[in-house]
Amino acid sequence: MTTVATEQVKNEVDTSALFGTLDAIETQPELAKFEFRVANRWMGGAHNRSIVKNFYGAGQEDTSREQAFELDAGEPAVLLGSDTGPNPAEHLLHALAACLTTSLVYVAAARGVRLTEVESRLEGFMDLQGALGLSDEYRNGFEQIKATFTIKGDAPAEKLREVVERGRQRSAVFDMVSNGVPVAVDVVAA
Amino acid sequence: MTTVATEQVKNEVDTSALFGTLDAIETQPELAKFEFRVANRWMGGAHNRSIVKNFYGAGQEDTSREQAFELDAGEPAVLLGSDTGPNPAEHLLHALAACLTTSLVYVAAARGVRLTEVESRLEGFMDLQGALGLSDEYRNGFEQIKATFTIKGDAPAEKLREVVERGRQRSAVFDMVSNGVPVAVDVVAA
Repeated sequence: MTTVATEQVKNEVDTSALFGTLDAIETQPELAKFEFRVANRWMGGAHNRSIVKNFYGAGQEDTSREQAFELDAGEPAVLLGSDTGPNPAEHLLHALAACLTTSLVYVAAARGVRLTEVESRLEGFMDLQGALGLSDEYRNGFEQIKATFTIKGDAPAEKLREVVERGRQRSAVFDMVSNGVPVAVDVVAA
Repeated sequence: MTTVATEQVKNEVDTSALFGTLDAIETQPELAKFEFRVANRWMGGAHNRSIVKNFYGAGQEDTSREQAFELDAGEPAVLLGSDTGPNPAEHLLHALAACLTTSLVYVAAARGVRLTEVESRLEGFMDLQGALGLSDEYRNGFEQIKATFTIKGDAPAEKLREVVERGRQRSAVFDMVSNGVPVAVDVVAA
């Protein structure tokens, strides 16, 4: 792939690094293997906390993060918690919003489109009769998720829509949430 | 459903409120309809932030949270970010860990099982050739997620395993991540 002769940093994304990454992976496909991880601990009731730090990628264990991230989850009072954090379903919506946004921003950078604003609102609809085991007519999770993106930038509306669409097509979390992923759960009980 | 005559608060979950909720929904199924939301804004590069506050549930708009939650996403340097937060795929793993944990804690509370420790480690494996558009052989998201739970409490190991298994069966995010959810993406481009 030839580096496009354009402003190097676009949308605060270093496009020469982006094209360099693509080139490196084309030469050494094993660099594309990544493993991400979280370690979660129950803190009582609906409160639990994940620690996020190292991961494997680009051919090595990546320990470059100086500090671990902490993510707290909880439930609101109506769901028997004390608001110690967003609830798990809200965290999932955030993961999806974040991934769609980053994907479209990187796509825009690669195509030389300068963005000035990207906002989104995600809504997920569920009937708790599923998760509470009260009715088999309802699934446990959201029946549907609606995402509405507002995007502005130095390009015609049609081009901006194309950037969102291409971002959607390349988004890791959109793929996972839309299509599902096999999840294996092992238990050590003591 | 009859309220079980047991210690009312178990695992810091108010079981009388839990059984009260189940009773209320059996009487008025429309109380089970919930809508969760996040509002996300791009902050530059791989950095974006979601705001989580109100939701709809139990028959009304719920504005009981006094403060909004903020969730930041980012990417590490090797993925062209500056570590402004966990990346979207890590947020998804957290959502899954959190939901499985809360589900099993509520199940244990309902069954009168006192837990003393719940920890989990989640790992997701992806090949970036998918998300980068370099190869159709790989999907964008994780090929597989592995979750390992360590659970301790005042019950035989077999009972604790059963609690984890029942929690998995009732988890909203486990359902969504395993089975997928239809996601509609609308765009307002300016």
